[in-house]
Amino acid sequence: MGKTIAEKILAAHLVDGEMLPGQEIGLRIDQTLTQDATGTMAYLQFEAMGVDQVKTERSVAYIDHNTLQSGFENADDHKYIGTVARKHGIYYSKAGNGICHQVHLERFGAPGKTLIGSDSHTPTGGGIGMLAFGAGGLDVAVAMGGGAYYIPMPKMVRVTLTGALKPWVSAKDIILEVLRRMSVKGGVGKIIEYAGEGVATLSVPERATITNMGAELGATTSVFPSDDVTRAFLEAQGRGDVWVPLASDPDAVYDEELTIDLNTLKPLAAKPHMPDNVETIEGIGAIKVNQVCIGSCTNSSYYDMMKVAAILKGKRVHPDVSLTISPGSMQVFNMLAKNGALSDIIAAGARILECACGPCIGMGQSPESAGVSLRTFNRNFEGRSGTQDAKIYLVSPETAAASAIAGVLTDPCTLGDMPQIDMPTHFDINDDMIIKPAEHPEDVEVVRGPNIHPFPLGSALEASYTGKIVLKTEDNITTDHILPAGAKLLPYRSNIPYYSNYCFINVDPKFPERCKQEGGGVIIGGANYGQGSSREHAALVPLYLGVKAVLAKSFARIHKANLVNSGILPLTFADPADYDAVALGNTITLPHVLEEVKNGSQITVQVGGRAFMADCEVSDRQRAALLAGGTLNYAKQQAK
Amino acid sequence: MGKTIAEKILAAHLVDGEMLPGQEIGLRIDQTLTQDATGTMAYLQFEAMGVDQVKTERSVAYIDHNTLQSGFENADDHKYIGTVARKHGIYYSKAGNGICHQVHLERFGAPGKTLIGSDSHTPTGGGIGMLAFGAGGLDVAVAMGGGAYYIPMPKMVRVTLTGALKPWVSAKDIILEVLRRMSVKGGVGKIIEYAGEGVATLSVPERATITNMGAELGATTSVFPSDDVTRAFLEAQGRGDVWVPLASDPDAVYDEELTIDLNTLKPLAAKPHMPDNVETIEGIGAIKVNQVCIGSCTNSSYYDMMKVAAILKGKRVHPDVSLTISPGSMQVFNMLAKNGALSDIIAAGARILECACGPCIGMGQSPESAGVSLRTFNRNFEGRSGTQDAKIYLVSPETAAASAIAGVLTDPCTLGDMPQIDMPTHFDINDDMIIKPAEHPEDVEVVRGPNIHPFPLGSALEASYTGKIVLKTEDNITTDHILPAGAKLLPYRSNIPYYSNYCFINVDPKFPERCKQEGGGVIIGGANYGQGSSREHAALVPLYLGVKAVLAKSFARIHKANLVNSGILPLTFADPADYDAVALGNTITLPHVLEEVKNGSQITVQVGGRAFMADCEVSDRQRAALLAGGTLNYAKQQAK
Repeated sequence: MGKTIAEKILAAHLVDGEMLPGQEIGLRIDQTLTQDATGTMAYLQFEAMGVDQVKTERSVAYIDHNTLQSGFENADDHKYIGTVARKHGIYYSKAGNGICHQVHLERFGAPGKTLIGSDSHTPTGGGIGMLAFGAGGLDVAVAMGGGAYYIPMPKMVRVTLTGALKPWVSAKDIILEVLRRMSVKGGVGKIIEYAGEGVATLSVPERATITNMGAELGATTSVFPSDDVTRAFLEAQGRGDVWVPLASDPDAVYDEELTIDLNTLKPLAAKPHMPDNVETIEGIGAIKVNQVCIGSCTNSSYYDMMKVAAILKGKRVHPDVSLTISPGSMQVFNMLAKNGALSDIIAAGARILECACGPCIGMGQSPESAGVSLRTFNRNFEGRSGTQDAKIYLVSPETAAASAIAGVLTDPCTLGDMPQIDMPTHFDINDDMIIKPAEHPEDVEVVRGPNIHPFPLGSALEASYTGKIVLKTEDNITTDHILPAGAKLLPYRSNIPYYSNYCFINVDPKFPERCKQEGGGVIIGGANYGQGSSREHAALVPLYLGVKAVLAKSFARIHKANLVNSGILPLTFADPADYDAVALGNTITLPHVLEEVKNGSQITVQVGGRAFMADCEVSDRQRAALLAGGTLNYAKQQAK
Repeated sequence: MGKTIAEKILAAHLVDGEMLPGQEIGLRIDQTLTQDATGTMAYLQFEAMGVDQVKTERSVAYIDHNTLQSGFENADDHKYIGTVARKHGIYYSKAGNGICHQVHLERFGAPGKTLIGSDSHTPTGGGIGMLAFGAGGLDVAVAMGGGAYYIPMPKMVRVTLTGALKPWVSAKDIILEVLRRMSVKGGVGKIIEYAGEGVATLSVPERATITNMGAELGATTSVFPSDDVTRAFLEAQGRGDVWVPLASDPDAVYDEELTIDLNTLKPLAAKPHMPDNVETIEGIGAIKVNQVCIGSCTNSSYYDMMKVAAILKGKRVHPDVSLTISPGSMQVFNMLAKNGALSDIIAAGARILECACGPCIGMGQSPESAGVSLRTFNRNFEGRSGTQDAKIYLVSPETAAASAIAGVLTDPCTLGDMPQIDMPTHFDINDDMIIKPAEHPEDVEVVRGPNIHPFPLGSALEASYTGKIVLKTEDNITTDHILPAGAKLLPYRSNIPYYSNYCFINVDPKFPERCKQEGGGVIIGGANYGQGSSREHAALVPLYLGVKAVLAKSFARIHKANLVNSGILPLTFADPADYDAVALGNTITLPHVLEEVKNGSQITVQVGGRAFMADCEVSDRQRAALLAGGTLNYAKQQAK
C-alpha cells in the first residue's frame, strides 16, 4: 500500500509504537525551536534534565514575542535564553531578527525533517515539506535531550487543489476556505496534506501561509510536497543542499478528501470572533475600518510585503485608519529597504513595527473601543487584540492593503491590474543576528534575572491521596480560563509563583488563595476541559498550587498531555452523573490510586462517604510518567 | 540699551506686565503643540472653555507617547484627540508620523514666534530661533483659546561658543558640557542664548539637540539666533518664507555669561542617574554595554541618523548588545529608506522601532536587570527606563553607534576618519500623516472612549474652610511621589478617577482612601514640595480627591503654578517651625480665607486650638484664579 507524505516522514522517524490509528507513536526529532514566551520554561526544564549539549541536528531559540519590553522581565528572559542557548549547543536568534516560523523557514527548515516547537504555529514548516508540530515546552526539552516526541497516530486528510488562483486572490483565501469547510475542530487528530495541480502554482511563502493556519483547524500538522518550487526557494536561500523531493505515492490512502477549485475562490475574511466564521469580502460589504495590521507568522514574507508595497505605492493610507506593518524577518525587512519597497510603504503613511509577532499576540496595537481591525494574522478570538469589544477580521495582505487606502473593507479585485511579484532567485542572506553556540561551552555563564524562578516538579505518586475539592467548573473551560495571557501577564511566564496568583482569576478569584490554604487539592471539570492553546503553564501553575488531579467529564487532548507531563492525574468520571454528586469543599480520597494507575484499572474515588469510579485513559508511557510524578522525572529515571 | 534675542521676542509678544526681573509677564502665543500623554486632558480643558476654533496661528496635536497601545485606552485617546482636533482648527499628526518636537521643527516652527507645548522638551524649537516653552496642558488650552501665557520674567544667560567641534565630537557633547558646568538646577528662571562664532558651524538639528536639553538645566527655555543656517534648513523644508533673521544686539546685557571652546571638547557621557553627572568617555573607560538606544527628541534627526548609518555600515552590532533605532519622524525614516542608509542600519543588526518617543519615556525596551544602557536621550533618572537597577548613560549618536559595535563604551574618535554628512538641500516633504482641520467642523463628531473621563473643576473659594489634614510629607516630594507615571499608568492620564487610586501610593498607600472618607482636606508638605516634572496631573488628581490647600515649607515653581491652575491654595508656613505643630488627622480651619486671599494678606490657620499664619505668595492674576476656583473658571469668567 502506498504512503502519504506524512506517513513517509513518520516512518523514517519512528522510534516507538506502531503507525496504527489512535496508537501512540514516538518520533525522533531532527530540529526544535522555541520562542521567548515559552522558551525560558523549556530551557529551565532542559537544564533540569542534566544534558550537556542538545542531541538534535539543529535547535534554535528565537526572541519574537516579548519584544515591547515594558519592564526588566523581558530583557532578563532574553539574556537567560541567550546564555543558556550558547552553553548547550542551541542557535540564538536575537530580538529583531524576526518571527520564529518565518526565520526558521528561511534559514533552517528542510524537507523530510521533523521539527517540534513550543509555539502552536510551528506547522508553518510544512510549507517546505517538513513534518512540524506545535508542542509543550517540556516536549521540546525532552527532544533536545534526545528523547522521542509522542503523538497519537493521526488520520490522513488530502486537500486537492485544482486550477490556479485568479488575480488578487491569495493563499490566505485558500486556508480561509479550508477553515470555512472543515471548521476550527475539523482538523483534530489529523494531518492535512496538500496535493493536486494547484500546488505547483503556489510559492513557498504561500504554502507556508496555508500550513501555518492549519493550527486553526486544530490539525496535528499540515504539509506540502517538496518539489521544484521548494528547491528553488531553498537555492535562493543558499541552502539548495538540504532539498530532497517528497510526494505521496499514487496509491496512498487518505481517511478524508477535500477538493478546492482555486479558479472559483474569491477574497475572503474570517469575521469576529472565530477563524472559521468565513464569508466573502463582497458579501460582508464596505464596512468602515479603523485599523489594519499586516504581518505575523501567517503573512509577513517578502512575497506578502512586496504585494502590499505595490498596492500602497503612490497611495495614501486613509486618514481614519492606522496601518501597521511588521515584516517577518530581518531578511524581509532589509530586502524591502534595499529595493525601495519600504520607502513606498512608509510614504503611504504606514507605521512600521519591529520584525516580531507584535499585535498578533496582543503585544501592542490594541484597537480603539469597538473598533474594526483587519489583520493578516491567524486568530481573531474575542479580546485577543487587547480590546475586548474590538471586531477583528482575518484577511489576505491584498485585502488589508486595499482596505487601508479606502478606509472601508475593500475587495482587492476592484484595484485593476494586479502587480506581478516574482520570487527572488537570491535572498539577501545575513545571519549576523543569529548567534552560534559557544565553542567553549564551559566558559559560558548562564544569567538568571530576578524574575526567573524555578519551575515546579511533581512528586512520585503515593499509595493513596486525600485532599479537598478546590474548584468545580462548568463545561468548555479554556486554557485562557485556567491562566489568562496578554501583554500584562506574558512577562510572568518565567515566574510561576507570581503567575499563580492569576490562576482561574476570571472563574473564581479565590482559587489561588484556597489552594494555598488547603495545600492544593483536586479540580472538578465539565466536558472539554482545557480546550484552547497549548500553553503548558495551564498545567504547571496548578501543579505549583498543589493540584494533584483533575476529575472531569472529558479533556481537550493537548491539555490532557500537559497534565500528564506535570504529573497531575487526568481522570474522567466513569459515570458522568457523578459530576453532580461532588461539590466545592468536599474532601476527596483516592484510596488505591498508586496500585490502580499501575495496573491500568479504574480509579476508586470517595467523596462524602460515597464511592464511585473514574477512568485514567493514558498510554503506557504516560502511565509511567504519572507514577514518576511527571514526564521530566520519568525522563530522568530513563536516562539513569 | 540693546536687547537679547529673547527680549526681542518677548517684547513683540508682551500683552501683560513689565519685563522686569521676577515680575510676571503675559505673552501672546503664536503656536501650540500637545502630545498624547498630556493632550487628552488639554483638549478636555479646551472644550470646557467653550471656544469654537483655536485662536493661535497654528496648533498641532501629536501622537508620539502612547504608541505601544497595550490596551484600548491609547487608541481611544488617539481617536479623541484626532476628532477634537479636526473640529476645533487643530492639525493632527497621526501615530507614526514622528516625535512632536522633531516634526514641529521640520514642518511648523518659525523664527521669532512663540510656542508653548504640553511637553517639557518644547524648547527644542529654540534651534530655529523660536521662543518655545514647556507648559501645563491647561496653559496650552488657554493659549489655544487666545489667552496669554504667564511666566515670571526670566534672567538672561549667554553661552558663547568659540572655535569649532573636532571630528567625532557632537552637539550632544556641547550640551553635556553646559550641564556639567551649570548643573541641573543652573538654568532655573533663566533663558539660555547661544552666541559666538561657533554658532554658524552648527546645523539646525545640532542646535535643536542643545536647546532640547536646556530642559535638563531647568531653564525656562533656550534659543539660537536665526541665521543663514536657519534659512537654509527652512528652505530645504520648503518653508523659506517663514524665515526672519534674529540676533541679539551688540550691546545686549546678560545676567550671566559662559564660554565654551568647541575645539577643546571631547566626547562626553552623563553617568547614572543625573544628566549633569558628566565625564569624558575616555575617563569612564571601556565598560561593558548591554543595550544601546538611538533616537528621542534629542537625537533622532536625519543628520543624526545618517551619522549612525555611516558608522554601522558594513559592521555588525556586538552579539551581546541590543541596539534600537527610533527615527524622529516619517520624513527622516523615509529619507533613510530611500538613500540606502536604513538598509545599512538593518544589515548591521539594529532593531528598528517606530518613529516615536519609545524607550526615552520608558515605553518599552527596558534594559535587563542591572544592565548598562547607552542612550542618545535627554534624561537618565533612576528607574525611568523601566528597570530600577539599570545604569543609563546619555551619549551622542556617534558614541552610541561606536559602542554598539564594540560591545563596550567606546570613544568614537578611535574610529578613524569621520564620514562627512551634508545637510540636504531638499528634505523629502510628505505631510500625508498630518490631518488638516475639518472644513466643516460642525460635521465632526468628537469620539470619547470609555477611558476618557471628565477632568475635575475647582469651585470658587468660600468665606472659610474646615477640613482634615490628610497627609503630612517630608521635604523634597517630587511629582513622581505625588503621582507615579511609567508604561503601566500613563494610559490612565485620561481617567482621573482611576489614576487617583495611585496618588501618593509610594508615600502613603491609604491616602486616596482617606481623602474619599474625609471628603478631601489639606496636605502638609516640607521644603521644595512638587519638584520634578511639569505634569499637571499632580494637581488635578489631588483636586479630584478634594484637596483644597497644600501648606508647605516651600514649593517648586511649576507645581505651585499647577496648584493655582487647579484652584488649590499653595500656602507656605510664615514660621517653618509651625510644621512640627501639625499632624496627620488634625482638623484644620482657615477661618477668613476668602477675605485674606482677596486682600493679599497672610492667611490665618487654626489647628487644634492653636493659630498661626501662612503666606499665599501669588501674582494678582493667580489670586483671581484662586478666588474663582482655578484658572479655567477664571478664564471663563474673563471671556464673559
